Amino acid sequence: MNWYTESWSDECKFSIAYDEKINSEKTPFQQIDFYKGKEFGTFFTLDGLMMVNEKDEFIYHEMIVHPAFATNPNIKRVLIIGGGDGGTAREVLRYKSVEEVVMVEIDERIFRLCQKYLPVTAGGIEEEPRMTLKFEDGLAYVKKAPDASFDLILVDSTDPISVGEGLFTIEFYQECYRVLRNDGILINQHESPYFTEYAENMKRAHKKIKHIFPITHVYQYHMPTYPSGHWLFGFASKVYDPLLDLHAEDWKKFKIQTKYYNTELHRGAFCLPNYVREALVDGE
Amino acid sequence: MNWYTESWSDECKFSIAYDEKINSEKTPFQQIDFYKGKEFGTFFTLDGLMMVNEKDEFIYHEMIVHPAFATNPNIKRVLIIGGGDGGTAREVLRYKSVEEVVMVEIDERIFRLCQKYLPVTAGGIEEEPRMTLKFEDGLAYVKKAPDASFDLILVDSTDPISVGEGLFTIEFYQECYRVLRNDGILINQHESPYFTEYAENMKRAHKKIKHIFPITHVYQYHMPTYPSGHWLFGFASKVYDPLLDLHAEDWKKFKIQTKYYNTELHRGAFCLPNYVREALVDGE
Repeated sequence: MNWYTESWSDECKFSIAYDEKINSEKTPFQQIDFYKGKEFGTFFTLDGLMMVNEKDEFIYHEMIVHPAFATNPNIKRVLIIGGGDGGTAREVLRYKSVEEVVMVEIDERIFRLCQKYLPVTAGGIEEEPRMTLKFEDGLAYVKKAPDASFDLILVDSTDPISVGEGLFTIEFYQECYRVLRNDGILINQHESPYFTEYAENMKRAHKKIKHIFPITHVYQYHMPTYPSGHWLFGFASKVYDPLLDLHAEDWKKFKIQTKYYNTELHRGAFCLPNYVREALVDGE
Repeated sequence: MNWYTESWSDECKFSIAYDEKINSEKTPFQQIDFYKGKEFGTFFTLDGLMMVNEKDEFIYHEMIVHPAFATNPNIKRVLIIGGGDGGTAREVLRYKSVEEVVMVEIDERIFRLCQKYLPVTAGGIEEEPRMTLKFEDGLAYVKKAPDASFDLILVDSTDPISVGEGLFTIEFYQECYRVLRNDGILINQHESPYFTEYAENMKRAHKKIKHIFPITHVYQYHMPTYPSGHWLFGFASKVYDPLLDLHAEDWKKFKIQTKYYNTELHRGAFCLPNYVREALVDGE
């Protein structure tokens, strides 16, 4: 049996069996590896870290997208930073009311390989008329984007090391604020509270965003193949509060079938354990 | 580096480093192994499965105990089935209003070894005047216990294989119902929805309890060192609903400092993902 193994910390590691390594290449940005197994289906890693697998990608992709739409059901223009596997775009495009989605992925090879090996996330994205694909640096893109041009920005990034680093900076979040409309929402891949290294990333990202946006919250979900299985998104907004402004009935009218998200879980996801609350306050 | 490794499924495994294996013995009931590492501190396994470690035992032990007390703050008599490490008893004993706690652990060696190696969970339990320790089979104990003699039963069991098997039966839950007072609550270690084998256990336990108790709910929490990190308890009751009857202000008056649990998280924990809801309904 072949095992893909990821270190979750110095003293913890996680392994998934695979039958076949189907692709391996080094781009100017990162090492990309695709594997195929039975239980987790096809999965790929960037610089050795699990990104997407067929068993639980639905959890991450539903949770990055639907809470923002249930808070503001009138979102029309969406910017995705990263998200080269296409799963986030797939969930956004399920809203017929969305008029344009711009996805800015620095590494085109991720998207091309996912088109080939992971149609569950990347299939049909390029052909969608409402979709604009840009293969360039996310920070560079937002710097030149016009003021108040998006309703929602989804930062679907890797960890803040190497290629993802520029996306976890104050400069980047300030540009996001400027590029968002007056009622804009930012959702940020916020890492995890359990292992020290990830918790430090969580605190840093939260601190920076809190410095810029008037309304900031953090929500959690169960993502078994990410370190500790306890993963977070940051919700930052200019006017909407994700709990006070939850439009549960309006969201249900979209009739979007989800496997993880629902509007009760939406409320529940923002209820954090004490140790996570305290770490977030401590980081501020 | 030495690694303790647990199979979470046929194609997934989880490993924790340790510096020293501090005890290993086979009792009439199971294989018990104690390890000591840096990040997770001292931890022990039963038949090779992670039970308790110093890094995250607080999550499991807070979540098995506090939701019941926040629903009925007048709990006086508590029965713990299993729970030989002492962590569940420790959390119950934090309520000064509790008058008696009976802990029925089949394998005395677990408790004795935890007294020696895991004082964080077992320390002080035996000396506590409100505590009664019984080293016998949990099913046999409830069968002979008087009607309506407990306010709360906490089933802190291993997985429903080998020694834990009799605790996942209709007969056992029926006896629990009889032994509970008219407003009694049962909390059941309910396994996990993500990996197939655990999800089957979850469905079976839920189905049996739903057959017996008029009010049944399931709540979730993040337990990183258990398979998938997504773990559940079943809440079953004769009259109290854990959401409608939540006494948040009364619970706060206990002034119990928790690291994971809080009364907002209490509400959130009952908001399950769609795939978990559907599996529970499917199992009924």
